[in-house]
Amino acid sequence: MAKIAVTDGLSDEAVRILQSAGHEVHIKHHEQSEINNGSLSKFDAVVIRSATKLLSQQIMASVSDDGGIRFIGRAGVGVDNIDINTATKMGIIVCNTPGASTSSVVELTIGHLLASTRHIVTADRTMRNGEWSKKRLRGSEIGGKRLGLIGLGRISRGVAQIARSFGMEIHAYDPYVEEVPGWITMHEEVDTIFSSCTHISIHCNLTEETANLVNSSRISMMPGIGLDGTKCGNHIVSCARGGIVDENDCSDALSNGQLSSLALDVFSTEPLIESPLMNHDGFHGSPHIAASTLEAQSRIGTEMASLIIQFFKTGKTDYSLNNV
Amino acid sequence: MAKIAVTDGLSDEAVRILQSAGHEVHIKHHEQSEINNGSLSKFDAVVIRSATKLLSQQIMASVSDDGGIRFIGRAGVGVDNIDINTATKMGIIVCNTPGASTSSVVELTIGHLLASTRHIVTADRTMRNGEWSKKRLRGSEIGGKRLGLIGLGRISRGVAQIARSFGMEIHAYDPYVEEVPGWITMHEEVDTIFSSCTHISIHCNLTEETANLVNSSRISMMPGIGLDGTKCGNHIVSCARGGIVDENDCSDALSNGQLSSLALDVFSTEPLIESPLMNHDGFHGSPHIAASTLEAQSRIGTEMASLIIQFFKTGKTDYSLNNV
Repeated sequence: MAKIAVTDGLSDEAVRILQSAGHEVHIKHHEQSEINNGSLSKFDAVVIRSATKLLSQQIMASVSDDGGIRFIGRAGVGVDNIDINTATKMGIIVCNTPGASTSSVVELTIGHLLASTRHIVTADRTMRNGEWSKKRLRGSEIGGKRLGLIGLGRISRGVAQIARSFGMEIHAYDPYVEEVPGWITMHEEVDTIFSSCTHISIHCNLTEETANLVNSSRISMMPGIGLDGTKCGNHIVSCARGGIVDENDCSDALSNGQLSSLALDVFSTEPLIESPLMNHDGFHGSPHIAASTLEAQSRIGTEMASLIIQFFKTGKTDYSLNNV
Repeated sequence: MAKIAVTDGLSDEAVRILQSAGHEVHIKHHEQSEINNGSLSKFDAVVIRSATKLLSQQIMASVSDDGGIRFIGRAGVGVDNIDINTATKMGIIVCNTPGASTSSVVELTIGHLLASTRHIVTADRTMRNGEWSKKRLRGSEIGGKRLGLIGLGRISRGVAQIARSFGMEIHAYDPYVEEVPGWITMHEEVDTIFSSCTHISIHCNLTEETANLVNSSRISMMPGIGLDGTKCGNHIVSCARGGIVDENDCSDALSNGQLSSLALDVFSTEPLIESPLMNHDGFHGSPHIAASTLEAQSRIGTEMASLIIQFFKTGKTDYSLNNV
């Protein structure tokens, strides 16, 4: 039976499932310095979220002559905090739970989009300040507008389906996908998403290619006038990863009116303490909570528990991010 | 050609259409005392929103021996500010624009619902206060839950369709409708909506029957546990009319935890200056902006202009709220 380190938390239900299967679960955060000193090498598996970084140095420190970790579980989706190549070289399998948080991220994305176009956050703030700001809070509809999706994976397709039910026309850019439903207009270049869409939602990974993809130059291409002729302005939302949206450029675009709204769940530096974005009514933010729902955390936990149980029983999993 | 008083504003486009058709448009707010003194009796038609009240006294003061108003246009939906019976007796036709704002209200309703279940307003407020409150902002998904609709007219059906695309199960109470799609479960009693639904949206008119319909007793029936078994709590949203939701009872229910969230666009007293609701993170509000979009105001204006032009050309309209 395996010794499992859980460094960033896991659902109670998942812990019970693992224990029932006979595994030993140690829930405790390991500081980066402890990991560098080999604190994980006494375990057979480690389950992390985004707070723990397992880059090359940490992975090398987590294996030992007589064993060490053979399984890295990312309870969630993004694996930019794991050096998968090093894991593969060391024979460590890496699994995440890519589908478990999809619906939660889809719902927050649509929520942020509507909160932007209808000034929901400003409405409440002004009301709490004793102001009845009905006149200056005229919004616009998302129906009849174009939604541009950067990246067209699971979450993005979920957003597309809901947005379509609101009457949006769906456009997307993703050089890595092939099968796409006929009602999504695919673009060959990311720039034409910006030049044709008043509403844009980000759903790609953070890579060298996508870093600061949303910048002044591209925002300046956005049309401001909707497909239906409404002067609805330009709106951007991201629940993907910090660093894809250039926050300073967006702050400038909110100042000069090229951008009407920006809603972000992710930031280039987290926790976000200070930002020029805070000066704008057109901005609202949330502290990386797209997967923070009871449902997503429960599904993430039970999926991760299944993967671990399967791995330590059979030596492999139905699904993994690398082949070892 | 008709002299038209516009007391609460109308879109520029609508004014141009009316002028092009040869009508005289006077845009000016009339105080209640002026109307009582007959200020509208010099006009052939009046177009109001919600700010102007045309009850029996005001209507009687707006007709004169040699004419006075023959057309009351409500640029919008709700006509609780117009005494239609008196208008009918005096031979005045009353028209509103019921479909023009439907999409806008549907979008705000869904936006408010998601803002509630995902703490969007609190997320931004805490972030602006320098707090990264990720841990305490765990939300829940609307997918897999029951949505109870009180009233099943145009707006409610639009909300139902979108909510269904999120994976909600739709329940409704409306003693006045007959044809309902098979995927909506109709209830015979309003109480069973409360006892079976964790999420409720209000879409009825304000009448004696619906005043304070949402009260402590009914909120206490709500299940707190979703159809999918998630302890998601209870959530209520209203973009209908103030007075249907008992705000004091809701404040109590937010205090004792029976209600997890309440989002209101309408209040028993507007403008809302002070309210015990403001003490709760679970509450957020907007200042009656459900129809305040560029699109709705444009459609309201052009529909109203068409009705007026038709009336003064043919003596009738394709659609009206009374028969004269």
